[in-house]
Amino acid sequence: MSVTAPLGFRAAGVAAGIKSGGARDLALVVNDGPSRAAAGVFTANRVKAAPVLWSQQVLKGGRLRAVVLNSGGANACTGPEGFQDTHATAEKVAEALSDSAGEVAVCSTGLIGERLPMDALLSGVDAAAAQLSRDGGLAAADAIRTTDTVSKISFKRAAGYMVGGMAKGAGMLAPALATMLCVITTDADVSADDLDAVLRRATAKTFDRLDADGCMSTNDTVLLLASGAAGVKPDLAEFEQKVTEVCADLARQLLVDAEGASKAIAVEVVGAASERDALTVGRAVSRSNLLKCAVHGEDPNWGRVLAAVGTTDAAFEPDRVNVAINGIWICRGGAVGDDRAKVDMRPRDVTITIDLSAGPHSATIHTTDLTAAYVHENSAYSS
Amino acid sequence: MSVTAPLGFRAAGVAAGIKSGGARDLALVVNDGPSRAAAGVFTANRVKAAPVLWSQQVLKGGRLRAVVLNSGGANACTGPEGFQDTHATAEKVAEALSDSAGEVAVCSTGLIGERLPMDALLSGVDAAAAQLSRDGGLAAADAIRTTDTVSKISFKRAAGYMVGGMAKGAGMLAPALATMLCVITTDADVSADDLDAVLRRATAKTFDRLDADGCMSTNDTVLLLASGAAGVKPDLAEFEQKVTEVCADLARQLLVDAEGASKAIAVEVVGAASERDALTVGRAVSRSNLLKCAVHGEDPNWGRVLAAVGTTDAAFEPDRVNVAINGIWICRGGAVGDDRAKVDMRPRDVTITIDLSAGPHSATIHTTDLTAAYVHENSAYSS
Repeated sequence: MSVTAPLGFRAAGVAAGIKSGGARDLALVVNDGPSRAAAGVFTANRVKAAPVLWSQQVLKGGRLRAVVLNSGGANACTGPEGFQDTHATAEKVAEALSDSAGEVAVCSTGLIGERLPMDALLSGVDAAAAQLSRDGGLAAADAIRTTDTVSKISFKRAAGYMVGGMAKGAGMLAPALATMLCVITTDADVSADDLDAVLRRATAKTFDRLDADGCMSTNDTVLLLASGAAGVKPDLAEFEQKVTEVCADLARQLLVDAEGASKAIAVEVVGAASERDALTVGRAVSRSNLLKCAVHGEDPNWGRVLAAVGTTDAAFEPDRVNVAINGIWICRGGAVGDDRAKVDMRPRDVTITIDLSAGPHSATIHTTDLTAAYVHENSAYSS
Repeated sequence: MSVTAPLGFRAAGVAAGIKSGGARDLALVVNDGPSRAAAGVFTANRVKAAPVLWSQQVLKGGRLRAVVLNSGGANACTGPEGFQDTHATAEKVAEALSDSAGEVAVCSTGLIGERLPMDALLSGVDAAAAQLSRDGGLAAADAIRTTDTVSKISFKRAAGYMVGGMAKGAGMLAPALATMLCVITTDADVSADDLDAVLRRATAKTFDRLDADGCMSTNDTVLLLASGAAGVKPDLAEFEQKVTEVCADLARQLLVDAEGASKAIAVEVVGAASERDALTVGRAVSRSNLLKCAVHGEDPNWGRVLAAVGTTDAAFEPDRVNVAINGIWICRGGAVGDDRAKVDMRPRDVTITIDLSAGPHSATIHTTDLTAAYVHENSAYSS
């Protein structure tokens, strides 16, 4: 299913030889129309990889015929030559499809600071183009994995149309080790402007609220393509709901597969004076290495929660903050609350609820614990 | 030596029974004058422990007769009762010295969210007062350790006076697991206002530029006490230099003893448009878990340096940034530079130099690598 669940899309995933070891490393997703409307959101990192710079430019036209994605190399920090490599990749896809490179987005993930093996990559484009099919969604999702242990795919059915998607990596705006790449497709008929607005709102509530390790990638890209092949102009509220569901589903899969994590932590901030305050507090708590270690050790260490809350500029009084872990309010009024022995930290899912007692707003940030396995994976793997 | 190196100071360190296990856990430092001028800087965390709230209030008078410090409990997030405990501690010290509690600073470190065992603590104050001596500096430095593997002490001699100090923990404003506590003494005759100005400048250039794990404690305190016993009004520039040297020496000791660290990393930012930009970039790079893991794995991963630089608002162009690791410029103009195989990552000290090519300013932030030992220590130890 994945990106080929909606009508009008073909895909392929091949082993081009970019990665050593013979695994799939090149994916191609093609929109056969009749519409080519598309939108994208990209990393906020000021150091952007060549494919991000290219695809941002392409998306200004609001149209995409195809997306080509490679694992095995990020093509980031590779200078003007790296940008030429991205351009050549788009041209090769255009040639294979007898179409224009100006409607081909490029995504790359892998090591920063190394040129891509272009001979292998360009041959891979030909191979992928030859294998394009309506069944190719799974192979495409497999080909974009780096340290992902499983492929991430999703699809949702709506009134007369579908939304499908694939993703790799963990997080957005603050992802873990690996870049987050995501392609979402629909056979509904939606204009580029509407796709753009829907995608921004959907990612803001899903991928943007994942914060696995606070590190921001050079390559993060989320694309949304509409073929219009179902011949349905959807209700936009329903459409946004479906796109958000696909994003949330993929975000959850990314979190569960985050490198080295043993816990999925929901940092739920309530009673905030504004949604911004709730997000600020949620992010600060999600980025506390000390707290993430404590959760790994199954220690309901609410002191580390308060210490992180105290670093923010959110509206709150320290003696009015309450904290629950897995439903037990172990901190009340900024001081000791219920018995910490009542907190069961054994489940994989841990919910930390922070009540700022400052207003009616709330937000949840999703993160993971900090483990020796994370350290091992990220000290041994060069990315 | 430590805090009793300068004339006019006595100190003691005793086992009061606050910690289980019988280790020293209470220190007392007394200024016998003739001057009692003093200044302090405190954590910027908005969640402040009771002893921080107390000592900030005391320091408004610009005078300190004594400082009492305990390990074994932070007295943070303990509500009004915790504040009363701090007050009672100061009163007990005042009673033992026949002096005023309004000139007694209190510092605590250890677990957040638990009341201190006040019977043990108050008995300990009596024991410490009975043992006060000119030789007590080392015992006092020993008594404030938590996870510190060694005591941290320093002293510097100047023209006719001395500056001494002790510290525990790691970091300031963004310390590691443990709170940073530091007491600096001098027998020079310096006014409280001058002490305040000197201490703020000295800590801004030393402790403030340590960033072991980006976490900010509820209890950080640095105090500077002048007895005037040497009868010397120092040249203030020289005095600031000596205080800064003591702070830098203690900061270095904290960094080397940071929990679980195997590398001491200097993130040196040059070519910045402002000192603020240099500090912003230095802190962002110091807080990249991915980079800290890479250094632990002795991988000269300059891509992760650039990815962290790109998250800041500092003035720079991505294609003009250069990065050296241990002197090898492996990234030039935002792309591949010299051969990464030339970088020797084996020494404990690792220097990452980032040239923003945007101006004449520079700053260095000191941090550590991220290790499985850090995770182990902070998931097993409740603080």
